Amino acid sequence: MKNFDGYLYVDGGVCAAKGFQANGLNCGLNQKKEKNDLCLLVSDTVCDVAAVYTQNKVKGAPILVTKKHLFATGGKGRAVIANSKNANTCNRDGEEKAERMCELAADALGISAEEVIVASTGVIGQILPIEPIQAAMPKLAEGLSYNGNDKAVQAIMTTDTVAKQVAVEFTAAGKKVRIGGMAKGSGMIHPNMATTLNFITTDLAITAEMMQKALKEVVSITYNCLSIDGDTSTNDMVCVMANGMAQNQIVAEEGESYQAFRQGLYIVMMNLTRMLAKDGEGASKLVECTCSGAPDLDTAVAVAKSVIGSPLLKCAMFGEDANWGRILCAVGNAKAEFSVDQVDVDLASSAGVLPVCRNGSGVAFSEEYAKEILKEDEIQILIDLKQGAEQATAWGCDLTYDYVKINGDYRS
Amino acid sequence: MKNFDGYLYVDGGVCAAKGFQANGLNCGLNQKKEKNDLCLLVSDTVCDVAAVYTQNKVKGAPILVTKKHLFATGGKGRAVIANSKNANTCNRDGEEKAERMCELAADALGISAEEVIVASTGVIGQILPIEPIQAAMPKLAEGLSYNGNDKAVQAIMTTDTVAKQVAVEFTAAGKKVRIGGMAKGSGMIHPNMATTLNFITTDLAITAEMMQKALKEVVSITYNCLSIDGDTSTNDMVCVMANGMAQNQIVAEEGESYQAFRQGLYIVMMNLTRMLAKDGEGASKLVECTCSGAPDLDTAVAVAKSVIGSPLLKCAMFGEDANWGRILCAVGNAKAEFSVDQVDVDLASSAGVLPVCRNGSGVAFSEEYAKEILKEDEIQILIDLKQGAEQATAWGCDLTYDYVKINGDYRS
Repeated sequence: MKNFDGYLYVDGGVCAAKGFQANGLNCGLNQKKEKNDLCLLVSDTVCDVAAVYTQNKVKGAPILVTKKHLFATGGKGRAVIANSKNANTCNRDGEEKAERMCELAADALGISAEEVIVASTGVIGQILPIEPIQAAMPKLAEGLSYNGNDKAVQAIMTTDTVAKQVAVEFTAAGKKVRIGGMAKGSGMIHPNMATTLNFITTDLAITAEMMQKALKEVVSITYNCLSIDGDTSTNDMVCVMANGMAQNQIVAEEGESYQAFRQGLYIVMMNLTRMLAKDGEGASKLVECTCSGAPDLDTAVAVAKSVIGSPLLKCAMFGEDANWGRILCAVGNAKAEFSVDQVDVDLASSAGVLPVCRNGSGVAFSEEYAKEILKEDEIQILIDLKQGAEQATAWGCDLTYDYVKINGDYRS
Repeated sequence: MKNFDGYLYVDGGVCAAKGFQANGLNCGLNQKKEKNDLCLLVSDTVCDVAAVYTQNKVKGAPILVTKKHLFATGGKGRAVIANSKNANTCNRDGEEKAERMCELAADALGISAEEVIVASTGVIGQILPIEPIQAAMPKLAEGLSYNGNDKAVQAIMTTDTVAKQVAVEFTAAGKKVRIGGMAKGSGMIHPNMATTLNFITTDLAITAEMMQKALKEVVSITYNCLSIDGDTSTNDMVCVMANGMAQNQIVAEEGESYQAFRQGLYIVMMNLTRMLAKDGEGASKLVECTCSGAPDLDTAVAVAKSVIGSPLLKCAMFGEDANWGRILCAVGNAKAEFSVDQVDVDLASSAGVLPVCRNGSGVAFSEEYAKEILKEDEIQILIDLKQGAEQATAWGCDLTYDYVKINGDYRS
């Protein structure tokens, strides 16, 4: 993981910050799948909460219920209840069931149902069985612990092959504070709210307004620059909870403390984004595209995203084929206005850097050296438009046989 | 192929209409690939020409040269020279080489270079060797024939597994007329000008203006509703040539004759679109999505395209898995404003019709019957938004292991 001055990576994920307990278990939502499928995350004190949601017009029932709760409490919350194996979406009684999940969690914790955030991920369009959740709730609440993050993150994984957690420690507003997060992937991920479920916790005291501002800014250059397969899920949610247990003077305006928080949030979310990309469904490689020399940030983002999103390029990366024409083709398809006449393209990895295109035309290169570079499992595509000073990065992965296999029969 | 009253399918492709000769041969642009790679199409008399091009900002050199020629002649043309195996794009001397191809063809035919339309398809970013084209030109011109369409269409194929040709005969302006076309696929195809190369010929006398109008309208509901993989090529072109040899009074305004031509053009292009979809790279199935009950045509098109373009749905179709939640998710991702609360979804094929979703929620169905329907090689997805009277169809295919294989190492 890349180092940032003043920020220290620490263990603990969503439990790294003071006062957050978590737990996860297998309540048996799908008898065939032996993995944790239900988790609970709770703060010792009431939190300010910021959240962003899927842009899909079909919104999962848990999203609707969470929005309602945060509206009712004015952006306050104490706990998250989340399940995998069933998205609780596009069925008859989704909202009712999502409300019931909140009530069950609230009863077990002795808090109000409106203080509970609910999330579900898994197959769309099936009825969510509430009985296994109800039966498991006492055990789930009993097992809460200040280092339960590993059990919790397991419970939100679907086709993920690795758990995704990051936490950092830094100083803000004169106090040592932490931000930690967990995320799940790994398909149906696209630049419009490119994630499925992400929960982030911090012990910093910060207003919901400042947190929402930071979240919106950071999402636009992290999760929203991630594409696995071009689909946007119905259940996507990123939620940040701040419980103020670091006992700093509350961050209520822009300035040094806000910037320190924003940077911490960026480090957590950028690392989760890279993990999501690298563990994209069926992925064998992380593909990172940085567009520099852009006339404005939107253009840089559009170009980087377009390259990462091209299925043909993704296949070429899987085949370790330096088919840079596809990169240029994807650059040309970016939804932005700019000139393509001066574009330079390099391919890079830990094995080296290879110029493949200068001023929009191919340059001679060694295919052997290209293979050396592309056989690594983290590939950088460097694009310089040479018409400005802005730059942005987007993250994706290759398109493999396994992606097709995993998604050919996901429901069974 | 679906029948349309008053239109008769005939053989002959681009040579079906009176006065069009064609030929194709292997001039050896890529020694490793033993297939025709160069074709010539010529009309006995000067044609009015209409064309639409790729929307990619990176435009192939042949596109730039063709545009220049059609501008210089005021939309007149006599011949098409086209090659596969090399896109003549993003290299140092592409325009020069494209001009040279036109000159060589013009010399062989005794016409002016500006009367020649040029097109290339294949790998991007490599220098086009002109020598093999120059050496082959005399033989190519000598071999021109009124039934050379089969040889010609072979020469524009790249990863296509079948040749794509259609022609129809009908009555317009009191004369029996014909429209015929050939097209190549099969990857890098997306709703923004979803094709690579398409040449269409007719013996109807029609003004370039009326032809351009019909082409634009028909493209928007045929090629632009086709998605194989979400990429848009640098070299896409559809070109229609009308030589007037049916000797009808020229069609110069909207009315019955224009409508007859437009319908004929629709039949040719719709059938080519279906063929392109069915022969999408690695495809094992044609997937057709019709969105009805839409408040307007744009919404119907956006919904149908969004469904066809979803990689997750494409994988589910490959796996013959009735995962209709992914259909609803794709409907929700469509770039249009509409309500998703009332949507109905059916899956259909020659084996039957299966309702899977009513009013936005799943309905119980037999998985066995679903398998029966999805095992066919032409699948229809029927979506009813129930909020209007407009409908549109989009065409695509499944996403398979072979797509990944074909594109993992396309250059070698």
